Amino acid sequence: MIDFQTNPAQYNHWKLEFEGEVCRLIMDVNPDATLAEGYQLKMNSYDLGVDIELNDALQRIRFEHPEVKSVVITSGNEKIFCAGANIKMLGLSTHAHKVNFCKFTNETRNSIEDSSENSGLKFLCAVNGTAAGGGYELALAADEIYLIDDGKTSVSLPEVPLLAVLPGTGGLTRVVDKRKVRRDRADIFCSIEEGAAGQKAVDWRLVDASIPRSKFADAVSQRAAELAALSDRPGGQGCELQPLTRTITDSGVEYSTVSVEVDREGRTATVTIKTNDAAMPADADAALAQGSDFWALRMTRELDDAILHLRANELEEGVMIFKTAGDLDAVLAADAFLQANAGHWFIRETIAYFKRVMKRVDMTSRTLVTLVEPGSCFGGLLAELMFAADRCYMLEGQFEGDDTPEAQVALTAMNFGTLPMSNAISRLDTRFLGEPESVEKAQTTIGQKLDAAACNELGLVTDALDDIDWEDEVPHVIQSRASYSPDALTGLEANLRFAGPETMETKIFGRLTAWQNWIFQRPNAVAEGGALKLYGTGTRPTYDFKRV
Amino acid sequence: MIDFQTNPAQYNHWKLEFEGEVCRLIMDVNPDATLAEGYQLKMNSYDLGVDIELNDALQRIRFEHPEVKSVVITSGNEKIFCAGANIKMLGLSTHAHKVNFCKFTNETRNSIEDSSENSGLKFLCAVNGTAAGGGYELALAADEIYLIDDGKTSVSLPEVPLLAVLPGTGGLTRVVDKRKVRRDRADIFCSIEEGAAGQKAVDWRLVDASIPRSKFADAVSQRAAELAALSDRPGGQGCELQPLTRTITDSGVEYSTVSVEVDREGRTATVTIKTNDAAMPADADAALAQGSDFWALRMTRELDDAILHLRANELEEGVMIFKTAGDLDAVLAADAFLQANAGHWFIRETIAYFKRVMKRVDMTSRTLVTLVEPGSCFGGLLAELMFAADRCYMLEGQFEGDDTPEAQVALTAMNFGTLPMSNAISRLDTRFLGEPESVEKAQTTIGQKLDAAACNELGLVTDALDDIDWEDEVPHVIQSRASYSPDALTGLEANLRFAGPETMETKIFGRLTAWQNWIFQRPNAVAEGGALKLYGTGTRPTYDFKRV
Repeated sequence: MIDFQTNPAQYNHWKLEFEGEVCRLIMDVNPDATLAEGYQLKMNSYDLGVDIELNDALQRIRFEHPEVKSVVITSGNEKIFCAGANIKMLGLSTHAHKVNFCKFTNETRNSIEDSSENSGLKFLCAVNGTAAGGGYELALAADEIYLIDDGKTSVSLPEVPLLAVLPGTGGLTRVVDKRKVRRDRADIFCSIEEGAAGQKAVDWRLVDASIPRSKFADAVSQRAAELAALSDRPGGQGCELQPLTRTITDSGVEYSTVSVEVDREGRTATVTIKTNDAAMPADADAALAQGSDFWALRMTRELDDAILHLRANELEEGVMIFKTAGDLDAVLAADAFLQANAGHWFIRETIAYFKRVMKRVDMTSRTLVTLVEPGSCFGGLLAELMFAADRCYMLEGQFEGDDTPEAQVALTAMNFGTLPMSNAISRLDTRFLGEPESVEKAQTTIGQKLDAAACNELGLVTDALDDIDWEDEVPHVIQSRASYSPDALTGLEANLRFAGPETMETKIFGRLTAWQNWIFQRPNAVAEGGALKLYGTGTRPTYDFKRV
Repeated sequence: MIDFQTNPAQYNHWKLEFEGEVCRLIMDVNPDATLAEGYQLKMNSYDLGVDIELNDALQRIRFEHPEVKSVVITSGNEKIFCAGANIKMLGLSTHAHKVNFCKFTNETRNSIEDSSENSGLKFLCAVNGTAAGGGYELALAADEIYLIDDGKTSVSLPEVPLLAVLPGTGGLTRVVDKRKVRRDRADIFCSIEEGAAGQKAVDWRLVDASIPRSKFADAVSQRAAELAALSDRPGGQGCELQPLTRTITDSGVEYSTVSVEVDREGRTATVTIKTNDAAMPADADAALAQGSDFWALRMTRELDDAILHLRANELEEGVMIFKTAGDLDAVLAADAFLQANAGHWFIRETIAYFKRVMKRVDMTSRTLVTLVEPGSCFGGLLAELMFAADRCYMLEGQFEGDDTPEAQVALTAMNFGTLPMSNAISRLDTRFLGEPESVEKAQTTIGQKLDAAACNELGLVTDALDDIDWEDEVPHVIQSRASYSPDALTGLEANLRFAGPETMETKIFGRLTAWQNWIFQRPNAVAEGGALKLYGTGTRPTYDFKRV
């Protein structure tokens, strides 16, 4: 089982050094602490385990260290900044693992950019040794890149010439769309093994500065201080992220506010989010005093872990079913509390984290079905699960022999822009691309509790069904879905979910990832005689030169 | 050899009926007239040969029939509008053929939308029998879709449930991004075999009208007339598209203004465009009187055929080298003539056609290298080949022992918006995304002839090299390129070429196509027990249900 939970005391690969407003995030990979057998993480190369720690470190900086205003990402290895994803690991991995690994890596890098854009946390990458492949891709996620100018330290994306795969965790997209490198220069840069160094790397927009080794540390410190000065992070007390309350059994995972039930025969996983009935804290500082027990944060962390767990460890559960349970008013109170206190750094972080987890849901290659049943509490932020789903069904009335009253749904301002998808617009804007007046109409219902007929009328659900139709239709939808080719469904969902504008993020997950996945299937890369398998053996691959 | 040239007298699958301002484009596929062996084109299903005729028919309507203002696409088969791409053909095809086929089909459908947007030619699809898969995807390319309402005639995208592949020639993208169907409805529609019919198809935005059979013909005629009334097409004399002057040998193709030289050992194909020295016609009508001999049109048709030929028939030539030969002033005169007469329908069509051919170049999965040498004539529209290329090298000075003076390049207004890429901005805007001031600077040079140093200074070329460096560098670039994995290069180029905004077109070619190509490699679709191979045998495929 791959576990996405860790904490700094357990890190094998990263060190966090705090010095006032600046945090140094230092990569120093332990070659022997690998996630699987058969390879060593030499030269600061990484596997998913290294990225799980990086993700954890970033979360802790955001939540536990409000005094930190800028982050310097650098290397603790004297020879190299980072050699990228470990090639031997890639060669040994299944297709599914490679894809999952890249997706998580992409999400972590996107979260760096999200911090910078939305949380007042700027990132400077101090490339103090060669950054190759995924190493430079990590640097590309930072706001600025400083490079040592010593005639040999370079940045490079050598995947195409060396490995016959792409710089697929954001590299190609960020080079032309973020750094805006001229495409012929980008083409040269990505097709030579040695990359670029010194002034040329600056001139080509690949890095922001190239600085002699003797002045490097000072320049980095000074720039980190300047970036910190741009921040609105307040300092003060942080929120310690306590270990999750989690029980994993063969049939699922039980958290405090989330439960996951796996049905291996039906190939489904049901994720249920429970609200708490406790009163909201008096104010944001009281919420902060609750720490990671604060319901919205607790629920977000648990949902995040549940999604990651299912993605990595339950590959055959093709349908994810989302449900909620609890008091709608309690969810609305929590939602109102978040909105009212969104100016407080802790609440801002909590909302931003929920936003990122919802993006992770959007990006999950499983069919997403949300079921709105009696006893559910789809209000405000939790209602996003209705709009993230490929299908959402709502029960009209009650189940026979069950007293629980008909479910109600309530929209809040949170559904109209606070939680954008990767395409930068809300799920409702995406849903109603062809009828923007339906978004306005939905917006007028804020403050109302909507029954199934009303939700159906407003177009908020795929269908409202009475209990007889429900018993007929819902299992049929889920079963037929689970019988289709999982690959075709992945392609279908990846294309239907992201209508409307494209952003760098959707380009990375759409265009770049899809091409990389294609290449990860091609014999020139992955067959026994392919480049990924032969790397390091001294034997050159023999390619089929037909262009497709 | 696959030949992209045809004419109405040779059509097997389409009929053109002209009635005043309206043209009926009638699909009536001859099941036995297939491009390859082993399948029959039953139920108006299609292979690449059917699409080659469609492409030809659309070109002839645009050029030969300026009196046509709207086009009705319909079926001559009583039972079915179109059953989509032939499944048996797909099952028998190589991966490369499937990909090439889909790309050409996409380009043809995009050209329908281009006609509507830029040429005053509107399209109404009269779905007079069931439109399934690619059949409905063809309909989606039209401005409007009318469907017979008889309780059984439907539109559908059954690829996912039936074949384990995607509706990959625009279907998924156009459903959510053009028709703006709500995504859960799109999800239902694309995962049931039976599709949608009648009022439901209208309500779900899948078609524009559903009309009883008895009133269908009248309604279509009336709407076609209304659409025609929106057009600014002038009527009058058309331009007959004469057969191309073309000699195909083992080492290439010789046209009148274009030559293609294939070097199988070096795995390159060199495409040289020659300008003519004849004076420009006196005015647009005189150009029209020249018909398809008019240089700009002739060159465009020949370049189009050359690119299509190389794509389909020369799969191992991984590097396409573009050159020009002739008098720069002659090209500039032709360019100025096109600009001055862009308001005339014939010239408008010629420019639009060149624009589409340049998009085909952008979309070609080969490395594109443009070489600017003495004797070349990269001016205005031909200079686009410099900016379409992945690399462009210009010789500084002369080749030793050759009197031909140093090459000069000249930009015109044509390079600043007339010929947008699929991303809707010019190649120079895409090139200089990070330094828009360089576009302005380049624009100030209009009217000047620029030598290699000036071009290099302006960032218009990858590098300017003297003859000694040239002999060293250029062959090295080409050889090293031809040695890399062709798949990785395809992915690299597809990601680096289209920086900046995304459009429906780039989404189709980027996201949708890349996912489809991935699925075309997956055992669930293409292995011996995969859905594409087993279709029609009565045996259901057994899927590997792991989600990736």
